[in-house]
Parts: sequence; C-alpha cells; structure tokens
Amino acid sequence: MSDLPKQIQVNEEGPREGFQFERGPIPTARKIELIDSLSETGLNQIQVASFVNPKNVPGMADADEVVAGFKRRPGILYTGLWLNEKGLQRALASGRLDVKGSLSVTASEIFLKQNQNRTAAQDIEAERGIARMYKQHNVPVSRISIRAAFGCNYQGDIPTGHVVSMIGDLIRMAAEENFTIKLVSLADTMAWATPAGVKRLVGAVRGAYPDLKIALHLHDTRGMGIANAYAGMEMGVSIFDSSVAGLGGCPFAGHKGAAGNVCTEDLVFMCDEMGIKTGVDLEKLIVSARLAEDVVGHPLPGSVMRGGSLAALRAGIRAGAAA
Amino acid sequence: MSDLPKQIQVNEEGPREGFQFERGPIPTARKIELIDSLSETGLNQIQVASFVNPKNVPGMADADEVVAGFKRRPGILYTGLWLNEKGLQRALASGRLDVKGSLSVTASEIFLKQNQNRTAAQDIEAERGIARMYKQHNVPVSRISIRAAFGCNYQGDIPTGHVVSMIGDLIRMAAEENFTIKLVSLADTMAWATPAGVKRLVGAVRGAYPDLKIALHLHDTRGMGIANAYAGMEMGVSIFDSSVAGLGGCPFAGHKGAAGNVCTEDLVFMCDEMGIKTGVDLEKLIVSARLAEDVVGHPLPGSVMRGGSLAALRAGIRAGAAA
Repeated sequence: MSDLPKQIQVNEEGPREGFQFERGPIPTARKIELIDSLSETGLNQIQVASFVNPKNVPGMADADEVVAGFKRRPGILYTGLWLNEKGLQRALASGRLDVKGSLSVTASEIFLKQNQNRTAAQDIEAERGIARMYKQHNVPVSRISIRAAFGCNYQGDIPTGHVVSMIGDLIRMAAEENFTIKLVSLADTMAWATPAGVKRLVGAVRGAYPDLKIALHLHDTRGMGIANAYAGMEMGVSIFDSSVAGLGGCPFAGHKGAAGNVCTEDLVFMCDEMGIKTGVDLEKLIVSARLAEDVVGHPLPGSVMRGGSLAALRAGIRAGAAA
Repeated sequence: MSDLPKQIQVNEEGPREGFQFERGPIPTARKIELIDSLSETGLNQIQVASFVNPKNVPGMADADEVVAGFKRRPGILYTGLWLNEKGLQRALASGRLDVKGSLSVTASEIFLKQNQNRTAAQDIEAERGIARMYKQHNVPVSRISIRAAFGCNYQGDIPTGHVVSMIGDLIRMAAEENFTIKLVSLADTMAWATPAGVKRLVGAVRGAYPDLKIALHLHDTRGMGIANAYAGMEMGVSIFDSSVAGLGGCPFAGHKGAAGNVCTEDLVFMCDEMGIKTGVDLEKLIVSARLAEDVVGHPLPGSVMRGGSLAALRAGIRAGAAA
C-alpha cells in the first residue's frame, strides 16, 4: 500500500526559524533555555541560529551569544545558517557548531530574474563561489537544496522537470569542485505543495537520481504541512526539517499569512502513532513546545502540545485499570 | 499509486459545530449571516443548528430562530442535529430543514459502560428506539455513524474488528425496522486517527461491506485532520464532514485542547490543487471563513483563509504577464 520508512530523521529548525521570525526582543537567556530544553528531547540535530546581518534580521543580533551559551549535549549535531563568508566565519569561530556546507539554488526562474536579475544557470554559477568558499575553509559539502521547488508566488507552479534538471546541474557543479552530493533537500519555501505534488516531485527526483537521499522542508502556510510530510513518507522520504511548536509562524491575525515549518511534535506524534521511529521523546518535546510559546509570548500553531499525546492517555487508562 | 476520487462531497458543519462550541453569546442575526454566506459558496450541504437543550448548550438556545431566518437556496441540503424526539420535532416543525435520520453508536465499550452503563449490544438496542421514532415520523434513514471509531480517551485504541462488527449489527437492526443503510460515517470523535489508522479502518470496513459508502468525520485536535482526509481519499473515500475556518475549535491557549472538524477551506484547497472536484468556490469560501472569525470574535484554526489560495496567486501572475 505504501513505502513508509521504519525510521525518520527530524532536523529541528525551531530556534533558527522562530527567533528569525519573531518581533521580539526575546532575551538571549530565554533562547538558550529553549535550545537546552530541545537538547533533552532526543532530537539529534538542532539548528540554533543564523549568522546574518542584524539590520535585516534583528532577532539574530545575539546569534553569537546564543551559540556561546547553550549546553552542547553529546550525540547532537548543532547547526547554523549563513548566507555569506562573514556568516560562515562567525559559525566557524564559535567553535561550538557542526559546520557543514550546503549549496542552494532557487527553482523559480522568474523569481531569480525579478529579484536577482539571474538565469537559472547563472544562479548555479553564483553558487560556485559558495562552493569555493567552503573549500577554502575546509568545510565539507554533501548536501544541496532547491528553494521554491514546488511553486513560487512570482512564477506559479514549478515544472518537475526543471527541478530535476537543476539538481543535475548542481551535482555536476559540485563535482567540479570535488564535492560529492549525497542529499537533496526539496524546500516548499512558499507553501505551494500538496500531497499529490510531493509524490510527483519526489517520484521524479528519485527516478532521476536513485542514489540521492531526499529531504523535505515543508512550510505550513496553507495547512498542508503534515499531509505533505505523510505523502513524502509514503514515497519513502525519511528526512524532514521541522520547527518545535510550529515556531516561525503564528496563528494570529496580526501575523497574517505567516506560517513556519511543519510542527515537530505534530510530526513526531504522527510517526509514533504509525510505528515510525524518530528517536524523540514526545512528552519531553511537548514540554519544549509549551516553553517555546512562553518564550515568544503568544500562541504558536502546534496542535499536539494542546491536544496532548495519545501515549499519555493510554498510560492513564492502564493506570486506571490497574488501580 | 493511489485511488484518489475525482470528486468529493463536502458536508459543511461549521455553523452547528461552531455555535455549539463558542462561548458567545453571538447575535442570531450574525449566525444567519454566516449561513447565508456559506450558501453562496457552492456548498450543497450545510448543517445549520442542533436542537438540543439550551441548558446544556447555551449557544443553541436560538436554534429555532436561526433556522427560521436563513435564506434557503435551491440545490442545497440544510440539515440539523438532534438527540431525541423533542429535537426531531423541532427540526420537522421548522419546515425549513432537510430532515433525514441517522443511527449512531459509540465504538468504545468502556466509554459506554462508564458513561451510560451499557454494553455495545445494548447501545444498538437503545438506538432501535431512535429508528422507531424516525419510522413514526416518516423520516427516512439510510445512514449510520460510528462515534469514537478510531480511539477513545476512556478505552484507548478501538479494535478495527469491533467497528466492523458494530456496523454489521447496526445494519441488521436497521433492516429489522425496514431501513436500508447505504452509508456509514466513521467519526474520529476524540482525534485518535492517523493516516495509517484511517487506511486500516477504511480498508477493513470496505472489505467487509463493499457496497456501503464511507464518510469520514475527522477532528483536528492533534493536527492530523488534513493528512487523515488525504489518507481517506487515497482509499477512495469521497464524503467528508468539515467546518469552515475550523469552527468548533480555537488555537487560543484559553481553549486548551479544543479543536473542531477538519477545516473546510483547507480541505477544498487541497482538493482543488490535486484536481479533485468539490463544487465549492474556494475564494468565496475564504470570504465565509473570514466572516466566521469576525462573527466569533477571535482567531480560528484555518490556514488557507490566512495564507490565501494559489489560484489567486496564479491569476495575479497571469495578469502581470499580460500587462
């Protein structure tokens, strides 16, 4: 009936997505408190900050302090985000992050043309500079990502064939720089994906590159996040980015239209209930999700942190029966 | 890959679910305004009120006035809910509703025992009184529904075989009263379903009763509503209850744990984007969803009413290209 994976890898991006998005200001100590809480849940990869220009992203002005302050727990990869060499250098200088490179291009040709006055080929060529930067800094690169892989507010639907072809171009460019690409992340940056679209694109990418691992980065702006993740799992996808409590989005009318990544605890709940391992303790994750709401000071989109887990209900029933 | 239906039937339950749940008070005229707005969207079935004891459900104290006041639009079935003969008589007396009977039982044996001191067999026998009531009032019955079909906060998981067996018992009881059952609604009353669970139960019910239509009533307490609907569609289910804007639930911390049905416009959006017909105009539905928020006076859980449709974005892109 389907090809559900036995286990999935959850890459937590809540701290980075959330503190980038929130109006704040949020005290540095509270950001660290959330990261430390997430470190207790069993998550094995947590993106803690982005090293970007604080003029553009005021919520990341304290990125260096956040990265210096959280408790590193063995067995967890702590990652960061950057857009240029200065950001990469800050990440490396921290000495506290697992710095890996990634090469990213945007699937929308019209977005590229209107916003960066580039063609798709020029976008890949520009990324060659990033590849060289990683080489200079001895940072390994085995991952690529395709932004707006499902659709774009400027271009509309993105043809599947174009995504497949950009992946090939990016793999070849990386090979010229002596990087071997093992994973492609398909990012639904502007929330154009539906379950059928996920199946179509994942199927096409897998068909073209059977040895490449596929990860999904799914935004939940139109409420499709969990359904899209499920559709991905049915296609055998086993790597997902997600945000605790749905950080990065807000159900308030004041943040109209905003939505973050698919919510980590809702994703873990679905997996738990379908017998798919995540390595994450859902009850502890719910504690972190509620902490995230407290840290940002307003409701966040997650459902399971409000509805509660079924495992807890089952335990209560068993305890009642035993009494 | 899947057995997605070409078309689905959307039974809108927002007014009934929502006004039953909201603390209110909401002026009768505003309830009518929402129903009239929904009548303009292309929906062909709208549940407008429940005739229940206003002491238990204060939000339905004006059910008779609401039902007397909305504009009946040809081609739409306007339905109501009731729990006993008095309620049925109010629905019939209105002369403005499409009154059909339904026989409902609860799948959880422990819930039945603890709350009604009944066995499953006794629950079906009690429903015989309801069947006779319909007969006396010349109300047709071709639908049954199974509450808590996926799980129950008192019992835990509900064995698939038990649901299948209760459906058989209910069909036989109905036949003894000369009613032919054509449809079973599987209700995830307490939000225990996951996509895998939906596939398992729908598969079992279809296997046992291949001629029976299956409808799904999916609550979204744990964020699985849309994914569960998608899983149902993959099994060929083509009838869904839903609530505009997710009425009946609230993302506020103050309404902790509450969640309504799967959100109508999110469901219609998913279908539109996957080429599944609903007969509903998504843009008009979004207008109704935003009206629903205004009527209840607080944010509701729907996503697409905030994120907007992709059809609107595509139209803007085309208009820009043509200009």
